[in-house]
Order: sequence, then C-alpha cells, then structure tokens
Amino acid sequence: MQTVSTVLDSISDVGRDASRGGYSRGVFTSAELSLRDWFVAEATARGLAVETDRNGIVWAWWDATDSRDGALVTGSHLDSVPGGGAFDGPLGVASALAAVDLLRERGVQPNRSLAVTVFPEEEGSRFGVSCLGSRLLTGSLDPDHVRSLTDTDGTTFADAARSAGIDVAHLGRDEEAARRIGDFVELHVEQGRGLIDLDSAVAIGSTMLGHGRWRLSVTGQGNHAGTTLMADRADPMVAAAQVVLAVRRIAAEQDGARATVGRLQPVPGGTNVIASRVDLWLDVRHEEDAVTAQLIERIHGQAQKICAFEGCRATLTEESRSSTVHFDGALQRTLHNALGRSFPGAPTLPTGAGHDAGILGSIAPTAMLFVRNPTGISHSPEEFVERDDADAGATALADVLEDLL
Amino acid sequence: MQTVSTVLDSISDVGRDASRGGYSRGVFTSAELSLRDWFVAEATARGLAVETDRNGIVWAWWDATDSRDGALVTGSHLDSVPGGGAFDGPLGVASALAAVDLLRERGVQPNRSLAVTVFPEEEGSRFGVSCLGSRLLTGSLDPDHVRSLTDTDGTTFADAARSAGIDVAHLGRDEEAARRIGDFVELHVEQGRGLIDLDSAVAIGSTMLGHGRWRLSVTGQGNHAGTTLMADRADPMVAAAQVVLAVRRIAAEQDGARATVGRLQPVPGGTNVIASRVDLWLDVRHEEDAVTAQLIERIHGQAQKICAFEGCRATLTEESRSSTVHFDGALQRTLHNALGRSFPGAPTLPTGAGHDAGILGSIAPTAMLFVRNPTGISHSPEEFVERDDADAGATALADVLEDLL
Repeated sequence: MQTVSTVLDSISDVGRDASRGGYSRGVFTSAELSLRDWFVAEATARGLAVETDRNGIVWAWWDATDSRDGALVTGSHLDSVPGGGAFDGPLGVASALAAVDLLRERGVQPNRSLAVTVFPEEEGSRFGVSCLGSRLLTGSLDPDHVRSLTDTDGTTFADAARSAGIDVAHLGRDEEAARRIGDFVELHVEQGRGLIDLDSAVAIGSTMLGHGRWRLSVTGQGNHAGTTLMADRADPMVAAAQVVLAVRRIAAEQDGARATVGRLQPVPGGTNVIASRVDLWLDVRHEEDAVTAQLIERIHGQAQKICAFEGCRATLTEESRSSTVHFDGALQRTLHNALGRSFPGAPTLPTGAGHDAGILGSIAPTAMLFVRNPTGISHSPEEFVERDDADAGATALADVLEDLL
Repeated sequence: MQTVSTVLDSISDVGRDASRGGYSRGVFTSAELSLRDWFVAEATARGLAVETDRNGIVWAWWDATDSRDGALVTGSHLDSVPGGGAFDGPLGVASALAAVDLLRERGVQPNRSLAVTVFPEEEGSRFGVSCLGSRLLTGSLDPDHVRSLTDTDGTTFADAARSAGIDVAHLGRDEEAARRIGDFVELHVEQGRGLIDLDSAVAIGSTMLGHGRWRLSVTGQGNHAGTTLMADRADPMVAAAQVVLAVRRIAAEQDGARATVGRLQPVPGGTNVIASRVDLWLDVRHEEDAVTAQLIERIHGQAQKICAFEGCRATLTEESRSSTVHFDGALQRTLHNALGRSFPGAPTLPTGAGHDAGILGSIAPTAMLFVRNPTGISHSPEEFVERDDADAGATALADVLEDLL
C-alpha cells in the first residue's frame, strides 16, 4: 500500500513553474491534463471505474450496489493557482485514493457506492471563476457565460474544454450527478495557522467564509512616458495604486474582513508608456454577505472618487460570489464520532478559503477535513504538509468514509 | 512614385494587437521580422544594396562613390511598444524610402553614398534596454550583458537574435559601421503637442531629454487571500502601490521632470493570492542628469521606507540611462537652410522621447525632423499622422538629404 506522500511524489515534477517557483497547473493546460491522466491511471489500477461527466468532473467509482444514486463522494481538485504549492488540491485527491486502499485493507464492505472525484478549475486561476466545475454541476452558472469566459491568452473556456475532450454543448446543471451525491467529504491542506496553534494534525471544517471576485477596470489616457508632462496626465496606474490602498484600508477597518489585490495588469504595459487602462482583481471575504456587499460598495465608491479626481473612469464587474457556508451539522457530528477512534478531540476550524465542498452544500450534506500546514502559508511554494500528517489525514478520511459507507 | 502613406499602408496589417489595440511589434518577433523582410524588399525594389550588420542593424545602400565611409545615413526603427501606434518608427523608415524616390525624381547626383537604416529594439519593449542597436554599435553596452537580457517569456536576447539570423558572437562596438556614419538624420512622428500649437507640419529637433529605466522589485510574503488576516500580511502590492504614488509626487515636485510606472507585474499574479513579489519599472526623465540621479535616489529612498514599514524589501536595478543630447549645432543650421525652400520658418523643438539619433550623436553629427501628430498622443493606438503631413515630412527629409549629399 502506498502512503499519501508516495502517491504525491509521483506527480512532483508535473507543472513546475521555473519563474514563479512552485506549480502552475491551470485547468486544461498540459500540466493539469497530465494530472488527470495520472488520476485515471491510479484509479484504474485500484479497479475503480472512471468516467468524466458533462462538466469535466472526473468520477472514479467503487460500485458496491447496482445503483450509484446517493453515493458517498470524496475528492478535491488538481488545478493550482499560478506558482502554488504541491498540496492545495492534490492532497485531497491522493488522500481519497489512499483511503480507498485503507478501507479495502480493513475489509470494509460498503453499503453504498463510493466515488473519488476531481473537480476542474477550483482555483479560478485560468478563467476567473473559482469552483467552476461544482458551480456548473449545481446549476449556479449560466453555461453560455462559462463557454465565453477567456483566459489571459484570449482562449475561451469552450475551446480549452473542447481540446480536453469535453462536449461543451452539454455544460451546466447535471441532474444525474446531483442525484448521485448522497454525501460529499473533501480533505484539504489547511491554508492558515489554525492547526499549528491547536497542535493537531487534522481538523473538521465548520464554516467556509463568504467571498467574491470582482474585476475593476480603470481607464485613463495612454500616452508617451517621456513627452507627456506630469500635469497633462490621466494615468490609470496612479488611480489604480490609490484603489489598492483604499482596498486595504477599507478591509482593515472592518472586523473579520479580508480584501486583496493579487492580480493587476496595466495595458499596454510598456515601461516608456503611460498605461491606457489598468485591470485589477478584487478578492473580498467576510462571514456576512451583507458586509461583503457593503465592503465592495465602499471600494467601488472610493474607486469612482479617485478616478474622477485623476481624470480616469472605473468599471466594476462581478466575476463570482459565494455566501458563507455552514457545513451540515449532522454530517459534522458523524465526522466527530468517526474521528473519535483515531483522533479523539479533533478540533473544529472555519476556513477563509473557498472549496467545492461549499458549493456542493446546496445539493447535499457536505463536510471537510483539514490537514496541518506547518508553514501556515498557502497559494505559495512555501505551503507544506509533513509525511506523517498526510498519513494521519488519510487515516482520518478512511475512518469517516468507513462510518458513512 | 509612392507616397509615404501608401508605403505605410502596405504594412498596416502586420503585428496588430487585438487585445491592446494598435500594434505590438517587439524586436525579432514574427511581426518585426516580417517588417524587416518588407523593408529589404522595398529597398531592393529601389536598387539599394541591403546588408545586415553584426548588431542586427539593416543598411540599404545607394552607393554613389567607391567608398561607404563618411556616408549620409537616415532611418529609424520598425519595432514598437506593446499596443503602439502605426507611425513611431515606421514613419521614419517609410519617409527615408520616399525621400530616395524624390531625390531620384529630382535627378540628384550624390557626392557621397547614402544609407537607409533600420535599428533593432529602439523601444526596449522586449529586452528592457531602449536604442539597443545603436548602443551596441557605439560600444556603450557590454555584449555579454546584452546576450543575457531576457524577455518576459525567459527568451534571451542571444536566442532571439540568433533565430533572426544574427551571429551573436560578434555583437558590440562596430568600427566599420561607426566610420561609415558621416551624418545621421532621423525623421520621427512628434510624440507631443508641439507642432499642433505651432501650426506647422514639420520641426527640427533641438534636444533629446535625458532618461533612464530602472526595475524595482518589491518582495513580501506570498499567501492565501482568504485565510491570511489583514494584520498578518506583508503584501508587496500594497507597498508597490505606495511607491507608484511616491513616484508621481516626487516627479511633480521637480520642475521639468517626468516619471512613470507603466509596467508592473505581481508574482504569481493570482486573484486569490497575496503576491510574493511585485516588479515595477520606472521611466524617469529630466534635462539635467544630476537631477535625474536625485529623482531616482529620492524614489529609491521612499521605496525603502515604504517597504520597511510594510514588512517588504525593495531592490532597485538600473536597466538603461541616457544623458540629455543637444543635437549638433552646425547640422541643425544646415537643416534650417534646407527647409528654408519648402518650409520657411520651420520651428525647432525639443523632445522628451529617446531616439537612436541621440545615441549616435556620440560618434557623428546627428539631427532629427519631427512630423506633426494631430492627437498629440504617442505610444498608443491614437497616435496619428495626416497623409499630407507625412508627404510634407518626406519632402523636408529629401530637401535635407539633397543639401547634405
């Protein structure tokens, strides 16, 4: 039997990013497609029946009964942020495979079917919408809108998915898949310092912070950096810089709020060119949706004021939005009981990150397990999981699945 | 005989940038190489003998005597900034070809050879150093340094130049080329509003503003945008935004100074990722080198203070630097006399932009002609030249060349 770390070791060379460090495994890029192939091979080697659904979600089935309806489903994603770590996503997939091995080793006879799943574009790094696969499945996104999303090279989601072998005519709400998810459990590396402080290898998820993404386009007057006097400028970079500072100030003033500009792109982007436009992306999170809405309204208002003063214009577009999710209470209690055997007193933790388990909560009871990250850092090459903790996570997941099967 | 605009029309489809608008014709990209091929064909069709020198500069010779030493040289560049206009560079090349046609139509018998030249990487858009070809020719750049310059994709100048057919082992100071430049005249679209206000189609260049480029790397702590509390961040984007504002403030406080951040790149650049590093490029210009040095010192000092406060680090690297150039007085007077026939009272204008004519001033008398730009905007798709003004420019250039031949 392979350990989780051994499973992960076999993909440690896929999608490395030499310039950013870490991994860049955008959905449907050659790196992510090669990880999907790897998953299919791993699942097939375990005798699981693999299929890809109409939204590009991969399902590997351990069929225990004639029916797949109401199955127990576990899994995560293989795509990454640009320059991300090795564990965000793949840890949950590798742990699910290892948990299947453990269940068989224990001689568990399931009372219902089990599926291990891989969701596409969980990060939203390539097409801007996080948890894109699960949002398509649950029907919360318009398939026409999704088909027309473009990456930074101008490739549409439709073209990228088609080249990955997906018939994009059939994207969208998937009744069959929804019916099959009886319960969903996702194991994930923790993306903060919670488990370091609690001195525990694993935790059970309680809530998932509401969050949204907006694109703010600041338009000014492009011109020559040498010939245009300072007084004659309408420089969108100067306006965008003030917006970045307003975002930080507004978030810092609101208890529990987080707001970030991690992506910003001047157009055309030449050193000797005053930009004509700066696009920047806002990531805003708060437990209460009403507060998130107030935060984005304040940021938008400030951006308008700043731009009016600088002779620029600001346009705000929502790219995605999710409410705070309180994971299913009964399922949380089942997890607590299951963990009582190997991890008595396992703590409960909220997460500030978004996950497919949050989206799937609208169609089935969902739960999460978090595994300790000794750096507390995520979305970075510095994200880490100790081998022992990864094995503890797989054991915990197997305990949970055993009780739920 | 073709007009300048007709000549330019034949390349109006090359290197269009669908996302930025205008043209992106980076040196040695397929767009710029196709423009070089076009130039060779146009020159060959006029019976000019074409050669590319060791630094990638293309020379098209009208050999009037046995010797090419001390020749009269005119020309400009074909590369563009990202999303640039149609005239910055190509107008000077097309006008030089049209001027050759005019000289022949007038039956001019040259007393010395004439060359039309195309310089590579005038904008420095791909490898960061402006006027790279002329700087190599004059020996002001270390060839080893130039070979190792990289573009944003990580391609080295050596590899890019090699794929364009240049033997990069022989880059650097070119004695033969330097000996051949007796006088150099560059015609260029005006990049400001000078000629609009003066109501004139052409002007003679007086000075070229000193300028430099620096790269500032701001390093912080990359992390997850959702899980990292505002108080726990060392966000280089927040520090970089303050630097952008400091740059504007410091330049605005100094009479005659211009300072711009037109290029800025967060790393890794994900929406849900606090950046680990932000690279930004400074374009700083002032007539007095000492003031430029003070400006960059103040900006660097401010960046250090900002970064210390934000828990980040700032590293400044000079990419290129040029002193203010006063174009050759005797050659300016020759231009005034030549223009007296068709353009009596043609004005004299300084330029805030950089040009190869400024760099070549260190080895030969150089001069510039500017042609009116009715938008006053440059390094933008909005840059423009009326057809009549383009023809006026070619006539003015022919008048000047006739007197100098």
